[in-house]
Order: sequence, then C-alpha cells, then structure tokens
Amino acid sequence: MNAEIIAVGTELLLGDIVNTNAQYLSRELANLGISVFYQTVVGDNEKRLLDAYKIAFERADMVITTGGLGPTEDDLTKETAAKYFNKQMIQDDESLAIITGFFKKHNFVMTNNNKKQAFIPEGASILPNPKGTAPGCMIEENGKLMFMLPGPPNECIPMFDSSVLPELHKRTDKVFVSRVLQISGIGESHLEDMLKDMIDAQTNPTIAPYAKFGEVSLRLTASADNADEAKKLIAPVADEIYKRLGDNVYGEGETSLAQTVAEILVKKGLTIACAESCTGGMLTAKLVDFAGVSKTLIESVVCYSNESKISRLSVNPETIHDFGAVSEETAREMAEGIKLTSGADIGVSITGVAGPDGGTEEKPVGLVYIAIARNGKTEIKSFNLPGDRQRVRTRTVVYALDFIRRELL
Amino acid sequence: MNAEIIAVGTELLLGDIVNTNAQYLSRELANLGISVFYQTVVGDNEKRLLDAYKIAFERADMVITTGGLGPTEDDLTKETAAKYFNKQMIQDDESLAIITGFFKKHNFVMTNNNKKQAFIPEGASILPNPKGTAPGCMIEENGKLMFMLPGPPNECIPMFDSSVLPELHKRTDKVFVSRVLQISGIGESHLEDMLKDMIDAQTNPTIAPYAKFGEVSLRLTASADNADEAKKLIAPVADEIYKRLGDNVYGEGETSLAQTVAEILVKKGLTIACAESCTGGMLTAKLVDFAGVSKTLIESVVCYSNESKISRLSVNPETIHDFGAVSEETAREMAEGIKLTSGADIGVSITGVAGPDGGTEEKPVGLVYIAIARNGKTEIKSFNLPGDRQRVRTRTVVYALDFIRRELL
Repeated sequence: MNAEIIAVGTELLLGDIVNTNAQYLSRELANLGISVFYQTVVGDNEKRLLDAYKIAFERADMVITTGGLGPTEDDLTKETAAKYFNKQMIQDDESLAIITGFFKKHNFVMTNNNKKQAFIPEGASILPNPKGTAPGCMIEENGKLMFMLPGPPNECIPMFDSSVLPELHKRTDKVFVSRVLQISGIGESHLEDMLKDMIDAQTNPTIAPYAKFGEVSLRLTASADNADEAKKLIAPVADEIYKRLGDNVYGEGETSLAQTVAEILVKKGLTIACAESCTGGMLTAKLVDFAGVSKTLIESVVCYSNESKISRLSVNPETIHDFGAVSEETAREMAEGIKLTSGADIGVSITGVAGPDGGTEEKPVGLVYIAIARNGKTEIKSFNLPGDRQRVRTRTVVYALDFIRRELL
Repeated sequence: MNAEIIAVGTELLLGDIVNTNAQYLSRELANLGISVFYQTVVGDNEKRLLDAYKIAFERADMVITTGGLGPTEDDLTKETAAKYFNKQMIQDDESLAIITGFFKKHNFVMTNNNKKQAFIPEGASILPNPKGTAPGCMIEENGKLMFMLPGPPNECIPMFDSSVLPELHKRTDKVFVSRVLQISGIGESHLEDMLKDMIDAQTNPTIAPYAKFGEVSLRLTASADNADEAKKLIAPVADEIYKRLGDNVYGEGETSLAQTVAEILVKKGLTIACAESCTGGMLTAKLVDFAGVSKTLIESVVCYSNESKISRLSVNPETIHDFGAVSEETAREMAEGIKLTSGADIGVSITGVAGPDGGTEEKPVGLVYIAIARNGKTEIKSFNLPGDRQRVRTRTVVYALDFIRRELL
C-alpha cells in the first residue's frame, strides 16, 4: 500500500506555519510499512484542491488530508472530496449534537458556519474529534481510501492515533509494535555515535532517533505475525540500548521529562519549589503540565527583579551587589532561599542572561546557572547556551529538569 | 507569476525531518507577491522526481527545489532537471576549483563523488554556496524558470537570500505590501461574520484571516506599481476594519499580545506582578518572552498549593475554606495579595480547574477566574473553557493578557 499526504491550507503556502503534521503522519505510516511517495500542500481553493486529489489518487492507494475542516467558507476539504467521489454532502446528526453541545456548554455564540462542520460526504464515516469541534471522516470507494483529519496538530495527531491507525491495522497482515525510549542529557549525534553499529545493522526492529529540543526519542519498531513476537524481537535490542545509554534513558512511551521528574518526586514523597529568574516561570509551567504535580509542587517564585530575590527568597543584597544577579553565589542563595521560605524538600533556582541584551564579555548571553538545594547541600551547574532568548530559555528548562532527575536517582 | 516549491529527499517522506525550507521560501515569495499554489515533497527517485517536475511546470511558471544536490548517487535533482530540459550535464570548472580547495583546506579526502557536485545542466547558471560545497543552479528556458537550492536550511536560506531574491526582483514589476492586524477577544468565525461583506468583495487588497490559539491575525495585501500606492490601497480597508473591530485590534505586524501588554505597561510606567495557580507560570513566562519586560515585571508567585496562597499572598484561609481555591473570592484575594506584597501597581491572579481531574458539577474542568487589582478596585472575570488541561491553560493565558490589555485602555 502507498499513501499520499495532502495538507490543505493557504496559511501553509504563505509560510505562516510549518507542516509538522506531514512529518508525524509520514513517520507513523513508515512504521506501518506504508510508503509515502509524495506529500502535497495546497491552498483553500476548490479547483486546485480537486486537481490535487486527482493527481494523488493516480499515484497512491490512500490519501490522508489535514486541514480545511473548519467552519468558514474557506474550508473545503470535505466538500471537494464529495465532488471528487460524486457524493452529496449530508448532515451527521450526532456530530451536530456534539457541536451544539460544545457551544452551549462554553457559552460561545454558535453561528450557521459552525453547523457546516457536521456535514460529511454521503457514505463517509465519522472520525470523532475528542479535542475540537471538527470531526474527521473516512471514505472508501473503488479501492480508494481517504482520511480527512483536522489541521491543528493537537487535533490531527490524536485523531490519527485513535481512528486512523486501527483502520490501517485492519488492512495489513503484519502487526507492528513500537517502543519509544526517551533520552535526555546527550545530543542526537552523540547518541548516534554510541549506537552507530546497531543503527547501521537495523532491519527488524528498526531504530529511529528523533531529536526534540535538548532531548532525543528513540523509536524501536518491529513487525511480526503477532504482537508478542514483535515484542520479543524488540526486547534484546532495547536491553542493549539501556546497557549503553544507562541513566540517559529517562522513560518510555508517552511521557515527558517534566512528568518523569514529577512522578519521581511524588513516588519519593518529596516536595519541590522553584525560584526562576530568566526562565520566567517556564520550568514550573512544564511541571504543572502534569496534572499529578499538586502532590509535590508547593510553589514557585518568578523573582524577575532583584527586590523580589531579596524579599521573597532572602537573598543577601550584598551577594547580588558583589557577584551579580547572574552568578553561582546568587543561584545558590536563591535555591536555598526558596527551599527555606517554602518549606519544600527541594529548592531549585535558575538565573541567567537570556538576551538579546544584558550580555557582557565576562557574562555573555546564554550564561545560565541552575542550583538545587537539598538535604543541607546545594549543587550548582553552569551552562553557556547557544541561540536566541527563546532557545536559551527553553533549553535551560530541559537542562534543569534533567539536573533534578539525576539528583533524584 | 506563480511558483511551486519541490523538496527532494526521502528523509522528508519518512518523517525524519520537517520541511522548514518550504515555510521560509513560501513566506519570502508571498512577500514578493509571487503566489505559491502548491508545495510538493518527493523522494530520491528519478521517475517520481521527473513526474513532479512535469506536473509542477504545468501549473507554475517557476519551480524552486530544495535538496538532492549532494555527492551521492541518491542526489538527483540537477540530473533529473537536465533530463526534463533535455540538456547534458557539464562540469563547471570554477565550482570544481572551489570544491577541491575546500577539501584541501580542511584536509578531507576528496572522492570522485564529490566532483559530481561541480556538474550542472548545460546552459544553467551557478548559484554560489558560501556555506557548503554544493553549489545551486538556475535554468531559464521557454518561459520556465527553475532554481535548485541545497537541502540543509543553513545553506538553502542564505543561497535564496543572496542569489534567488535578486533574480526575482529583476522579474517583477509590481510591488506587494502587507499589513497584518492582530486581534484578540473574538474568535475566527465571529470575526468573519463581522467582515463577511468585505472578505467576499476583496480583490486588491486581499483580506486573509489566520486563527492562532485564542487570537486571529488579519493580513491585508495590496499590489501596485510602488509601495506608496499599495499602502494607499490598504489604508481605507484597514480603517474600515478598525472601525468595525474597535478595541479588538491590539496591534499590527510582528508583535504578540504579551509584548503589547508589556509595552503598554512600560509606556504608562506601571509595574505588574502575577499570582498564578492552574497556569503554573505560563502567563509570566509569556510576558518574559519580551526582553523589555524587566522594566515592568516585579515578580510572580506560582501559588500552586493553598499554603502558598496563604503565606505568600495573605489569602485568608477561611476564604479558601468557605468558597474553595477556585472561586471569585479567592481570585480577588490573590490579586489583591500579590499587588500588596509585591508593591506592584497591578496585581493579576489566575485560579481554575485545568483538569483532567478535580472538576465537579458546580465547578467543572475549564472553570477559570482571572482577577486584576488596580487603583483600589478589583475586576474579576470567569470563563468556562473547552479542551484538555493544556488547552484550558493556554487559552487562559491569552484571555488574561487580553483582560489586562483592556483594563489599560
């Protein structure tokens, strides 16, 4: 089976957004052994969209579209598919009820436009959208299979996982099983070096690294006649990788570094509090992404001004005066201060020069101190991070989480 | 003139990398008024690549390719273009000298493969590559224009800027000017309702709305013989939109809601401090995205636990006991508490049920209170927000920023 991915949206053609859906879908299809020969991006224009469908179905058995399911007149994906397959658009009552309920519940004004989202081509099946109002749909006819998914990645990806994957599994006789190892503390090229012989020799399971910001995921995928056999193929390879990477593997599957840290804290019955300067609350916000964090997170102080460092964390004004707000000494007092004033078991602090201004020869943009106070001791690390303000801050958060994780090992 | 972007590389079809080049090139072409009707991704396969060229030139005047200029047998972009245009591949001596010099300088071993990079289709012109060994090239024939650029973004983008842009400027007689209006406080479909007649009647300038999370951008683009004329075409349309949308327009061009809020605060000489519960620091982190925020942001407290609300913000324990941590009363005391304890002019608080757990019939997931204390008064708004934990929190931050902005008008 081979597939084509068609992203629909003028905003992609104007360069307003990046087509990350195509990457996700391509990777997932590759894991299933489905070849993607082309990805296409087309705008919100009926004629060009119809042409794209025709070309795609001449060269692929299956088409997956993303985008164009919204409520406005510009959203034409389903309507054009109906035209391509010679179908009427019909109202799906269940979808309409869900959409109406959504607007009622949230006291939003529902316009006639919104009803359009409940229409699908006759004969199509609904793909439910647990994350938004636009349902997706699937049409299968004359050996042609088409899935239409929403554009926002946070709706597209869950719909693919929950509705498209099961349909595709039905259509292949092999079973594919994946294990994803989550890695922090080493970069992608270093990781590839450590596993080079294994990556070069890979056949079944395949080994695919994906770099995220300051982290790497390693996906092992095996195909076999059944899931147990596939798992057995993966197990020794995973064991060897654990042996080589050791503590750099922080988890498996759907988790995050922040969630892992929060879970370790909860498991150990430890509480935490953070004092953030340049990151401005990003570290704490990451921890709060994980709902269970309330058991461990007492509070955080975003001590952006020196006065805040002094009044909230009892940092000594002379320390700031003598060594600067971005210094090992201030980082230490911030970590010890937040620990003491919050009563948490662990105090974490971050202070750095995020830029673009404020850098000096001695303390350049990208210089960051992270300190962890715990059990009467304070550990401090410093980093010289590349990139702009946003990159420095994002990377700092990853490094801080990895630092906390390793302290807790 | 209209263009198609073709990215060549199996790694894109496997989902190993994201096609960021397409975004960059599309945006640059849009700025020049060159329409991109399609983006295509195709693998390192001669037949499929040739087909992609044929299809592209049937629907576009100009094709820009990225990738496939490397030294290996898999790299086929130029060779296939030569086939498409019925040309021989010939050696470019100057390029060969540059490549040979590069290998000598870095003491790398040069293989015969590397010489392949110095070959271009007969009649093509070289586009120099200051960042790597692979030169690009340009072919113009029978009204068809083709640019071939390298795949790595750090080579592709500088080559586009230094070699392709000047060629394109030579070829267009119209100037395109855009104004982007940034809008918060109304949704995309509501906005389209308010501007429906204008959007339906659009020709020059064009009016294009793009929904972001809880915000909308509206891009007005006009073409004319010169920039002044284009601006004159946009002005009355923009004025009419301002008249209809009023305070919902918060800014123009490259700005964000957080930056707008921070800039207003700095301009008015006001200081701010935030008390965040369910958002966990996201509001403050957004403000800190903007480097100039140090002039206005004193501090924030992520008062995730009740103890923190009491000890850091002097919230009355009885208020939490009687009304709950998520209540109008607690939100009020949090905002007043952070204002008082920080000494800021404005105190902002957020408390809500972000989910997935913790919701009740009376206080469901998505219920959020935002309070602003200022000038001895405290304004409070409550929202019932849809979506999962992450969406509730992200939307809350946008609503909080919009609330602050309107308070400052």
